Amino acid sequence: MIYASIVTIGDEILIGQVLDTNSQQLARALEEMGIHPVHMVSVGDDKEEIAKTLLAELSVAHIVIATGGLGPTKDDITKAVLARISGSTGYVKHPGQMEKVVEILHARGLDVLESNINQAMVPDKADVIVNRLGTAPIMVFRDMPGSGHTLYSLPGVPHEAVGAIPSILEDIRAHQPLSRILHRNVMVYGMAESALSEKLSEWEDALPADMHLAYLPNTLTGIRLRLSCYGNDAGDEEERLEAQLERLTALLGPLMYAGEDSNLETAIGLILKEHGLTLSCAESCTGGEIAHLITSVPGSSAYFLGSVTSYAVSVKENVLGVPADVIERCGVVSSEVAAAMAQGVRALTGSDYAVATTGLAGPSGDEFNPVGTVWIGATGPRGTKTVKYVYKNDRKRNIERFAASALNFLRLMILEDLSI
Amino acid sequence: MIYASIVTIGDEILIGQVLDTNSQQLARALEEMGIHPVHMVSVGDDKEEIAKTLLAELSVAHIVIATGGLGPTKDDITKAVLARISGSTGYVKHPGQMEKVVEILHARGLDVLESNINQAMVPDKADVIVNRLGTAPIMVFRDMPGSGHTLYSLPGVPHEAVGAIPSILEDIRAHQPLSRILHRNVMVYGMAESALSEKLSEWEDALPADMHLAYLPNTLTGIRLRLSCYGNDAGDEEERLEAQLERLTALLGPLMYAGEDSNLETAIGLILKEHGLTLSCAESCTGGEIAHLITSVPGSSAYFLGSVTSYAVSVKENVLGVPADVIERCGVVSSEVAAAMAQGVRALTGSDYAVATTGLAGPSGDEFNPVGTVWIGATGPRGTKTVKYVYKNDRKRNIERFAASALNFLRLMILEDLSI
Repeated sequence: MIYASIVTIGDEILIGQVLDTNSQQLARALEEMGIHPVHMVSVGDDKEEIAKTLLAELSVAHIVIATGGLGPTKDDITKAVLARISGSTGYVKHPGQMEKVVEILHARGLDVLESNINQAMVPDKADVIVNRLGTAPIMVFRDMPGSGHTLYSLPGVPHEAVGAIPSILEDIRAHQPLSRILHRNVMVYGMAESALSEKLSEWEDALPADMHLAYLPNTLTGIRLRLSCYGNDAGDEEERLEAQLERLTALLGPLMYAGEDSNLETAIGLILKEHGLTLSCAESCTGGEIAHLITSVPGSSAYFLGSVTSYAVSVKENVLGVPADVIERCGVVSSEVAAAMAQGVRALTGSDYAVATTGLAGPSGDEFNPVGTVWIGATGPRGTKTVKYVYKNDRKRNIERFAASALNFLRLMILEDLSI
Repeated sequence: MIYASIVTIGDEILIGQVLDTNSQQLARALEEMGIHPVHMVSVGDDKEEIAKTLLAELSVAHIVIATGGLGPTKDDITKAVLARISGSTGYVKHPGQMEKVVEILHARGLDVLESNINQAMVPDKADVIVNRLGTAPIMVFRDMPGSGHTLYSLPGVPHEAVGAIPSILEDIRAHQPLSRILHRNVMVYGMAESALSEKLSEWEDALPADMHLAYLPNTLTGIRLRLSCYGNDAGDEEERLEAQLERLTALLGPLMYAGEDSNLETAIGLILKEHGLTLSCAESCTGGEIAHLITSVPGSSAYFLGSVTSYAVSVKENVLGVPADVIERCGVVSSEVAAAMAQGVRALTGSDYAVATTGLAGPSGDEFNPVGTVWIGATGPRGTKTVKYVYKNDRKRNIERFAASALNFLRLMILEDLSI
């Protein structure tokens, strides 16, 4: 087993000014390669602290990945520490990174200053991976004094750190004796983790010893099931993984919405695009979140026509054409209003399908319904359906669960209509 | 100076399955009290690792706060480790927490099982703070063997951990010799950090030695300025802080949108509510994000009537009434269309004010405009205004910046109309 440690450098994380998202991304990538992260550590911009922490982590982990402290300002001191603890005798200019520095500054219309040139200077013990997204180089120190282990140094800026992950993984793969590990993701929505685990238990228990299923739940995307298989000499792991996936897919039926790491809005988009269908939505309690999710997908303008957020009753009546007497008789949070909202926005936009929500996200309920109640309506060429859910979360999480449930309800209707 | 360390316990964080948000919340709270966080560490569900890490951190920090590993399942082993390293001789049942356990389970309609009763059992060296939000107790171990320092143990579930912060801070304040520190937050939108820092430099340089200004930028909320002052014997720090705030407020003018930690949607909501005004919005490139932000504010139904997301040109024309020849002549991403969208949704909903966006969030631009271009329109009883911005981010961040810029543009229009 190869062990790794992730070290984050910078006061801004330590004092809570910035949320550290790099460590999670790195940990996930390492774990999926079969490398076991043993520690995550954050230290401040202090030379002694950085040196002490890196050396301590190198003594327990084969691979240490450090992010941050590589910028051009005077509180960026990581490189000096790396030079010292790696036993480097000086700095050399890295031509590839220098080219990148010049390119990036010119694209921004800036002159190249001394401090920028310093960005391309690296300790002489470092191997360099050119950072295509920024001016700070990605450095690899192999065979570190004391431990003999490997230290990677990445920029702290999140998109640069995450952008560096593929190169880091490639380098690790080339230098570490890793057992091959394959993963397949399956996305599931519409069943609680405990119920799903029960449903799959017989199949899961019968999995061969070198296969493993992980449950990774998320409010907006449901449960990601990750099936993993370690490589062996026979080299048939891909085949065996696919065979088990086929069984899993059959067991899940329409609970499964994607065969790779994805989300509901992307899955729905693919179906709509493939069949040349269009979508609109009408939102009350979700207040724009459904439209926001759908339009987060690049290219969604191909199938998403638009939406109406009808927070006021007057907008429900005048824009969406929900009859006043239906609201009067059934209440705003009702099956009838959810259906009428969906039908209303479908008529208004001329879309093939529409989905609508009306409910109470909180903080308070009304005289008829508790906080967390939502009625969802979906409508299409073959008719209209509604469903009610009651969740018990705070406003923010209720809005997310309402939106995800609405997307899933819509997905199931479209699948049924298409007889997929 | 009092030093603190934050330790997160649990494999789910270490392998990247869950993002650690607790540490940031804790660090921020400690830092605002004048306590300096020196490390954040994550360890897995391993007794030896947990013990070693906690003892190491106690040797360098006066206060160690550990979260996680307190649940009722068998991989929750923190309590056993705490009992051992605190020198406890056994467990005692804590009546207050036991009451809470019974109350929580009954509310969920569940029976009290052996494993639940165990939740209220604590090592005999622990002081207990009752956890009002869950079954696991909050424990304080004072005068830990070896270091004499203090160890706090909190549940890992984020809303329970964050919910425990006020009690923890109160306990720290009662037991540590802290110098008093006061903070005031001021929220600013519409100026880059570097420009703002230049604008404020003269005032900032003249601040007394015991006052400090911090810049805390965020895509959606702009820059939070935090002015801090250490307490002294004269006891006049509150007064002096207010005097400096007055000067800061005057310097900022309408750049400042709130005198406490807040966001644009909340600030706009307060103005609308106070003056009995209503709002609607029309969104193209922001795709529902503005409506989502506005409706994230509890009580927003008092002033927000609704919105139209007009992704398709047909929805812009047929629902919002944007004239086809304007789109033809000026292009979809234009001042004219932004203005017509805002006016259209205002007419449709009958709101006092309306704001609209049309632009290109990415991944690609069109033949006239680069990715990142947005036209914002705002309209109200005194007329219509538009503005254009060009940002250089990815789709997700462009959508956020478009939405925040639109909210700020709307805010400035309302303020001008009200002559505030």
